[in-house]
Amino acid sequence: MRVEVGISTRAIATRMKQQRGASDVMFPIPAALLVSGRGEHANVMTIAWIGMMSSTPPTIGVSMISSHYSVELINATREFTVNFPSAKQVEVVDYCGLVSGKKRNKFNDTGLTPIAGAKIATPIIEECPYNMECVVTETFELGDFTMFLGEIVETHITTTCIDAETGKIQVTQLDPLVYCAVIREYWALGAKLGNGFQAGRDLANRLKMS
Amino acid sequence: MRVEVGISTRAIATRMKQQRGASDVMFPIPAALLVSGRGEHANVMTIAWIGMMSSTPPTIGVSMISSHYSVELINATREFTVNFPSAKQVEVVDYCGLVSGKKRNKFNDTGLTPIAGAKIATPIIEECPYNMECVVTETFELGDFTMFLGEIVETHITTTCIDAETGKIQVTQLDPLVYCAVIREYWALGAKLGNGFQAGRDLANRLKMS
Repeated sequence: MRVEVGISTRAIATRMKQQRGASDVMFPIPAALLVSGRGEHANVMTIAWIGMMSSTPPTIGVSMISSHYSVELINATREFTVNFPSAKQVEVVDYCGLVSGKKRNKFNDTGLTPIAGAKIATPIIEECPYNMECVVTETFELGDFTMFLGEIVETHITTTCIDAETGKIQVTQLDPLVYCAVIREYWALGAKLGNGFQAGRDLANRLKMS
Repeated sequence: MRVEVGISTRAIATRMKQQRGASDVMFPIPAALLVSGRGEHANVMTIAWIGMMSSTPPTIGVSMISSHYSVELINATREFTVNFPSAKQVEVVDYCGLVSGKKRNKFNDTGLTPIAGAKIATPIIEECPYNMECVVTETFELGDFTMFLGEIVETHITTTCIDAETGKIQVTQLDPLVYCAVIREYWALGAKLGNGFQAGRDLANRLKMS
C-alpha cells in the first residue's frame, strides 16, 4: 500500500522538486575556528566540514583540503581545538577562511587570543564562547580532503553563557554563528521553536492512544 | 612572543571559562531526517550527528547508535537519504527522534510523504525542502555508534525555495530548522549577517596594505 501511495504522488512531487546534481550544499552548520599547532606556530582556520560522529566517547569529524597548512600541523601534533564563534565575530571568522596560515599569523591579524586549554598543548580561542580540545584517533584521505576524527577530551564555555542557577548553556547569550555552506551565507539565530525530545511528545502520546 | 602573551592572559582567561568535561554538546547543527530502507520498509529517523566530510566527491558522514533500526536497513541496502526540514516541521522532526521504526511506521504517523529519488531506491521526503541521495562508501564502528560515509549522488530542492531569476537557493524561503544538540533546543534562523568569502574581505585588504 505504501509503495502505491509513493508512486501515485511521484508525478506531482517531481514538478515540485528540482534536481541539483551531486552537490555539497550543506546547512545549517557551524562556521567554526579550528586551531592547530602550538606556541608561535599555532594557526587558526575556518571550518564548515565538521560533525559529531560518536558520543562514546565524544568524537568529532573535521575535514579540510589536504594541502592546507592545518593538515600539516595536525599531522605533526595529532591534536586540534574547535572553537565556536558568536554571531558578532562574523568578520574575523570569514577572514580566517580567506587567508592561509602559511602566509599570515591570523591570531595577530584578528586579535583573537590563543589561551592554554587543560588537556592538550594546542591553544583554544578566548573570544569564542565554546571550545573543544581534541586528540586525533583516525585519519582518512577522502578525495582531495583529509578527514580527522578527534576525541573530545575537554570542553570550555565562557562563564557569561552559563545560567548561574541551573548551570545550563544559554544559547541566547552564546548567540552562535550559523553558516549555509556553498550557498555562502552567515546567519544569526532567531526564535527558539521548542525543546528536543519534548516538541514531538504530544504527537507521540496521541498516536499511542489511537 | 606569542607564547608569552598566551601565558600572561591565562589567569584572566581561566576565570572567564568554565571546563565542561569530555562533552558531545554540538551546535548549531541540522536536525535532519534520515530515510533508510525501501518501499513499505522505508523508515525515517531524526539525526543530528551529521557533517560534510569531503567535496571530492561530495561525501557526508552520518552517525547513529548501532542498535538503531536504521543501521540494519542501511547495512542491507548500502544507501540512505538525508532530508533537511524547515522550521515549521519541528514537531514531526522531534517525533521521529522519539519513536523507533521497529515499533511504528513513522511515515504513516507523521503524514510525511516518501517519494522516489532519481539515483537510488531509498525514497526522499517530499515535504522536506532539501534532499540528498547517498550511497555508502565506508562504515566504521565508533564506540556504541556506527558512522557511515555516504557519497551524495543526487540532491533535490523544492522549487519554491529557488530564486526564479538566479537559480540560487533562498535560505529565507527554505527556513531551515536549527538544532543545538545535548542542549536540546530547536531554533529558527534570524537575520542574515553576511556572505561567505566576502564578509572578511575588507579586513584582508586592510591587512594586505598595512
